[in-house]
Amino acid sequence: MPPPPNQTRPEEFLFKTMEETIKIADYLFERLRQLGVRSLFGVPGDYNLTLLDYVEPAGIRWVGNCNELNAAYAADGYARTNGLGALVTTFGVGELSAANGIAGAYAEKVPVVHIVGTPSRTLQESRALMHHTFADGEYRRFAAMHSHITIGQTNLTDPRTALQQIEWILQQALLHSRPVYLEIPEDMVGFSVLTSSLIPVPPSQFINSCPQALECILQRMYSAQRPLILVDGESRPCGILGHIEDLIQSTGWPTWTTTFGKGLTNEQMRNVHGVYVGVYGNKEYKAYFESADLVIHLGPHLSDTNSQGFTILPNEEITIAFSETFVRVGGRTFRDLSCRGLIKQLLQELDRGQLVKVDGLPNYIIAVGETSLRDSITQEQFYRFVNPLFCSGDIVLTETGTAAHGGRSFRFPPNVRMITATTWLSIGYMLPATLGAALAQREGREREVPLPQTVEHRARPCVILFVGDGSLQMSIQELSTIIRQKVSAIIFIINNNGYTIERAIHGRNQGYNDIASWCHLQALSFFGDDEDHAKKSTFTARTWEELGSVLRVVRRGDGVRLVEVFMGQDDCQGSLSDLLKKQIAAEKMTE
Amino acid sequence: MPPPPNQTRPEEFLFKTMEETIKIADYLFERLRQLGVRSLFGVPGDYNLTLLDYVEPAGIRWVGNCNELNAAYAADGYARTNGLGALVTTFGVGELSAANGIAGAYAEKVPVVHIVGTPSRTLQESRALMHHTFADGEYRRFAAMHSHITIGQTNLTDPRTALQQIEWILQQALLHSRPVYLEIPEDMVGFSVLTSSLIPVPPSQFINSCPQALECILQRMYSAQRPLILVDGESRPCGILGHIEDLIQSTGWPTWTTTFGKGLTNEQMRNVHGVYVGVYGNKEYKAYFESADLVIHLGPHLSDTNSQGFTILPNEEITIAFSETFVRVGGRTFRDLSCRGLIKQLLQELDRGQLVKVDGLPNYIIAVGETSLRDSITQEQFYRFVNPLFCSGDIVLTETGTAAHGGRSFRFPPNVRMITATTWLSIGYMLPATLGAALAQREGREREVPLPQTVEHRARPCVILFVGDGSLQMSIQELSTIIRQKVSAIIFIINNNGYTIERAIHGRNQGYNDIASWCHLQALSFFGDDEDHAKKSTFTARTWEELGSVLRVVRRGDGVRLVEVFMGQDDCQGSLSDLLKKQIAAEKMTE
Repeated sequence: MPPPPNQTRPEEFLFKTMEETIKIADYLFERLRQLGVRSLFGVPGDYNLTLLDYVEPAGIRWVGNCNELNAAYAADGYARTNGLGALVTTFGVGELSAANGIAGAYAEKVPVVHIVGTPSRTLQESRALMHHTFADGEYRRFAAMHSHITIGQTNLTDPRTALQQIEWILQQALLHSRPVYLEIPEDMVGFSVLTSSLIPVPPSQFINSCPQALECILQRMYSAQRPLILVDGESRPCGILGHIEDLIQSTGWPTWTTTFGKGLTNEQMRNVHGVYVGVYGNKEYKAYFESADLVIHLGPHLSDTNSQGFTILPNEEITIAFSETFVRVGGRTFRDLSCRGLIKQLLQELDRGQLVKVDGLPNYIIAVGETSLRDSITQEQFYRFVNPLFCSGDIVLTETGTAAHGGRSFRFPPNVRMITATTWLSIGYMLPATLGAALAQREGREREVPLPQTVEHRARPCVILFVGDGSLQMSIQELSTIIRQKVSAIIFIINNNGYTIERAIHGRNQGYNDIASWCHLQALSFFGDDEDHAKKSTFTARTWEELGSVLRVVRRGDGVRLVEVFMGQDDCQGSLSDLLKKQIAAEKMTE
Repeated sequence: MPPPPNQTRPEEFLFKTMEETIKIADYLFERLRQLGVRSLFGVPGDYNLTLLDYVEPAGIRWVGNCNELNAAYAADGYARTNGLGALVTTFGVGELSAANGIAGAYAEKVPVVHIVGTPSRTLQESRALMHHTFADGEYRRFAAMHSHITIGQTNLTDPRTALQQIEWILQQALLHSRPVYLEIPEDMVGFSVLTSSLIPVPPSQFINSCPQALECILQRMYSAQRPLILVDGESRPCGILGHIEDLIQSTGWPTWTTTFGKGLTNEQMRNVHGVYVGVYGNKEYKAYFESADLVIHLGPHLSDTNSQGFTILPNEEITIAFSETFVRVGGRTFRDLSCRGLIKQLLQELDRGQLVKVDGLPNYIIAVGETSLRDSITQEQFYRFVNPLFCSGDIVLTETGTAAHGGRSFRFPPNVRMITATTWLSIGYMLPATLGAALAQREGREREVPLPQTVEHRARPCVILFVGDGSLQMSIQELSTIIRQKVSAIIFIINNNGYTIERAIHGRNQGYNDIASWCHLQALSFFGDDEDHAKKSTFTARTWEELGSVLRVVRRGDGVRLVEVFMGQDDCQGSLSDLLKKQIAAEKMTE
């Protein structure tokens, strides 16, 4: 599909003179840089090498990943933090390895540009039986596959339209906050094209104002007696993060997040009560939630795993749902409007005096239960115990499994972002995503004024990952890129001897939920860390006492720090624990 | 597409009584076992757990891999050795990670059964917004993607046809020697179906005899004055491996292999001259090859990388090409016949007296050039130097890169199989493929009479991998599965500081061809090997003297042995060396 010409954005054009020429690769990377991309992920391959020559001259860091799936995961983590991410792979072998990571970005709305270096047009047109193909002359298979997992696809085969195609595809990624697929044949990389081939036309936009919707929303808000706000994860792609806090403060209404929404709002505000987990949480919260007569649902994302198995989805009748391009008020849908504009307007017009005041809900506090120093570490207490580690500016990542379940009980300081398992739940994602998030975090800091030397080390923002030993095995090699890129990261490995989340679901004693036992304490030195640094940056904890000692010092270090924490093979919480108990009961029945 | 009912094979039915019932998963794994599958690769996931309960009861070993791409690679290596391989992944996240490995099996004709555990029919039909989907109710995307990289797809949604579908899909894999895709919804796994639902019908087969083709071939053979045989890699899927040696012996004609064909014939025969590499090899071989008036091309595979950049493809006019279902004689195609049957018949009818005798070509010998013990190890000599290590029964694997290039100069003892980079060339493939091949090798041995205790240790067949440090990083974690499965393998890591093959192609000094530096000597202990075993099984060599010492002892060990061999960053041979020289010349021009 050729890109529609009416969607380019004239105000961001770099090149003004009609006669100027630019190489296609220069244009692509310059545009990515303008859009905030400072690190590019990927793996070199036969059909992308000349393309890679243009990366560093464009002022973009080349992050060589260990494999393409890890590169896609890293670009996703980078994009969630930075707003846009990109990776370069090679035709066939490279791009297909990345497919699962690209699909994850689609499922959870992350704008990732997947750039694929492909064989020259001559080779493709002659149907040459090249390597990285099925040796049958067919070159379009992998693009066809990507059409299922990207929101837009384009193939730069015509120099007359190449720049426009680049504009269009980047816009698709940003507009829909989803991955896109961009092919560059080798012979197009260095092709000089006239910048005048890029015909600026006015962008098509929604009219921000929709008086009817606004009226309808305000009416509902003024008449509500038991209202609440539910911050969900698509608030990020909706672009309303800047307004959420205002809404929570203006209304003063009880606010929860979903798992996906965690980290998108300030959990230190009096009326923010953490992740709403229904039956697994505070009973008073549950009673209020279930008797609510208005739910303002920001950025809904309705998967089973993000809604506690569909149990916490509010009744449509009482819901105002703000999605990217529409708002739904009590089941009535107002389409094709800017969610962001609408909320902005809402905040301006809102008469706080007409809003009900809600009091009496217990504060959201987390407390560590009674533990003896020598006791083994348990899932139940662990996440509360490490909570004091977090500082403003941190990015916290919790991998699919017990870590993601446990991480719901964190209570963050202001300005902490979270990346956690939501819907795609591809284990192995979080370690490479940590690399991406850490690079984006560092680049963000580099653009800010540096901290004075006297500010305590502890306060320096950091990326903190919680990952199970099973998930870790999927993508462990990316630890070496984290080391090589010298980012600051603390990694907690939860060593519970295999896939505990799967044990909870089914087959708790089955061999297929076991994994090989690794010597995690050697990880840093094996993956190329300086020996001295590795030694002082590797920790282990089996008891609360040991964990306490680690927590006191771990932020003082730099680079990557690794903490192996041992927990029981069957130890899990909440819904996982229920599943496990069901299995045990069933086993007793059949005994 | 429903399976055509006329392709099941009645003679292999397990279940005779019309009234018998069997669970679908039991049937599937029983059939796989009957077809020789003793090890099943994969990773557990939410939608395949109950399916996995049926694996070990069927007498099949569950090999838990570290990730799905590695599982696909391992199943491919297993299938190339064993004849059929299979893996189990979970819906979405799992199956997409495996896609690149499945595509490789398609490209190089390997029968791999990709079994995907999917959500129950109820969930799918209700379009539930489950995890591992895009939360939009669409469940068919990933199957659509697999239709591009598998030869057949089937989805077991109907108990009335499930057994037939299994028969049909397995037959597709075996018939075409290509991967297939099989979905099992969770609720179908334990479904008991009547075995009578499997309606036996006679198999459709080609008529083996084709007198016209035979006549035509014999005529050409009798009149040839400068004939040769070219053994190519598709001889394996053609099923003619058993007849190749006969043909070479009967004719006595000069014989070469392609890269893909290496290891498919006995290289110790007088008239077998190794891999034909055109301009990069023996000049007399080249002169003969280029003046030939008949080329018997067995199992042609015509990709650029398998034909030295299309330079060694014989002229169609003088070629008899034996492909799976057709033979092409001087450009005339006889279709829909059994290649295997035809060769068998040819061998019976061949009158050796009428064949020309060819003499005078130099023998195929490999000799190590002059080296001083203290010299650094070079690519040029290395592969000849290690050649005496190989024993009958070994499987040798050479990963894409300098290893695959170098491995062309091995001269194997009889009965050595090789797996090498051909067309798909996905780096990272070979280590997991080593796991697969080693398991298949061991299982093959277990079916044979055990060796007497007195037989020298050295003679025990082994799997030997040559892999570059860059490729190794892609899939290193599978080393832990190799350790865990206690297979016997020797792994040579060529440490040349990054992607040397890519440096040769482009960007020899560019940072994107660098990789992180790992401490390979710690690999075994990090990945869970017993510390004592790891210590005595890890070697390093920088000089010929050191390498010699390693070679003297390395076969005596057991389990996995790791040899890190250091070579120069720019050191490469043949066509790679030419490419590198061109770059250096171009650099001088622009200086």
